[in-house]
Amino acid sequence: MRDFKELELKLVAFLRDYCKNIGVENLLIGMSGGLDSAIVGALCAKAMPQNTHALIMPTKNSDPKNIKDATEFCQKRNIKFKILSIESILGAYQESIDTNLNNIRKGNLSARIRMSLLYDYSADIRAIVVGTSNKSELMLGYGTIFGDMACAINPIGELYKTEIFEFARYLEIDENIINKAPSADLWEGQSDEEDIGYSYEVVDEILIATKNGEIYNKQIEEKFGKKTVQEILKRVKSNEFKRRMPLIAKI
Amino acid sequence: MRDFKELELKLVAFLRDYCKNIGVENLLIGMSGGLDSAIVGALCAKAMPQNTHALIMPTKNSDPKNIKDATEFCQKRNIKFKILSIESILGAYQESIDTNLNNIRKGNLSARIRMSLLYDYSADIRAIVVGTSNKSELMLGYGTIFGDMACAINPIGELYKTEIFEFARYLEIDENIINKAPSADLWEGQSDEEDIGYSYEVVDEILIATKNGEIYNKQIEEKFGKKTVQEILKRVKSNEFKRRMPLIAKI
Repeated sequence: MRDFKELELKLVAFLRDYCKNIGVENLLIGMSGGLDSAIVGALCAKAMPQNTHALIMPTKNSDPKNIKDATEFCQKRNIKFKILSIESILGAYQESIDTNLNNIRKGNLSARIRMSLLYDYSADIRAIVVGTSNKSELMLGYGTIFGDMACAINPIGELYKTEIFEFARYLEIDENIINKAPSADLWEGQSDEEDIGYSYEVVDEILIATKNGEIYNKQIEEKFGKKTVQEILKRVKSNEFKRRMPLIAKI
Repeated sequence: MRDFKELELKLVAFLRDYCKNIGVENLLIGMSGGLDSAIVGALCAKAMPQNTHALIMPTKNSDPKNIKDATEFCQKRNIKFKILSIESILGAYQESIDTNLNNIRKGNLSARIRMSLLYDYSADIRAIVVGTSNKSELMLGYGTIFGDMACAINPIGELYKTEIFEFARYLEIDENIINKAPSADLWEGQSDEEDIGYSYEVVDEILIATKNGEIYNKQIEEKFGKKTVQEILKRVKSNEFKRRMPLIAKI
């Protein structure tokens, strides 16, 4: 079990020091109503109490409960926020692309629209865009490159999703945010764990036992079965490109 | 002077090997009518002759000559292309943001719209998005992070702009593409060298003499003056964040 008090102090200092170092006073988050962005919002609001901003960017498919949770969370934590529907922008893309987009393409476009709006707003208010991807998502590549994975800094990128739940209780995040099933909320009833095919408990235990793409704790294979472990490792490997810079030809 | 024949072979092999390694047969480029994307297009068309694709994505402010040059270039090199105006998408952003956007914000949004369209199309045709940023741009940070700087692979990221001009003659790029003033073409008459404040000849000579953010060849300061050299170095340093992954808090 982590020392969450120490963790909180460390992450708040990380955010504050970065602001000081580059001489920018505002932090900006895309707030979804989910747990990861709530945790990051809570940390930012402690680091820069008067200068934390959020954009809430729903589509017409977003669960209204998420918009409500995001709004109330910002109000409680004194985070300045704007609600900006991305529906008309998404519609403009669809019209230009002139093809029926499946859910995955729509989801990736939505994530990139949100990134574009966050970065544009950050230029307007002179803010740092703070990322909300956790370590489980980053390792699995469960996210959109140049979309929700894009940010300047990320305080929770080394925390597994199962740790996020524990940390959330320490940070006194509202129970209704903690208790909802993790979801990218791109279509009704979407669930991270269904998309991934395994629960975060299983995923995290395997990821924690992985080093350089190999399992170093063989008991894990006995516990979860070779097939499950291999599927997770394959996913980590095939999404490696999302965790590195573009490959530039050496000359 | 580089051996351009050897360079060409190396970069074509780089593209071809990457395709083979990840099992994807199509390459995709955003083609502007400018020199960098023409060079990358020429290399891709040699690496994957039947499987090179381009999107030409003008706004209403794009010089029609650039659209014409891009189109003719694709036709000559047997690159499959589509012209897709981003004007209505840009309009949808402007309406949602509901503020008068200055040229810089419009330019960054345009670059991110183009990235979003390229990545969406790459999912449709199963292609690798190939970047077109040269080393001078990457070092100066003259480009949009998560916009034109976003790609999976980049064959010219180690080539300075002044080398690009020489390489272009070897690759027999059309003179009218070689001879136009480098420009992001975001507004009428825009010029890279005016934006940057120095010619690429000056910039590149200084960059070549730089290592780890320091000038190791002191004659450069005598030649161009301390102020110029310091301005370039400062720009390199302050844009370092565009050349690395988001900063994740260590815990």
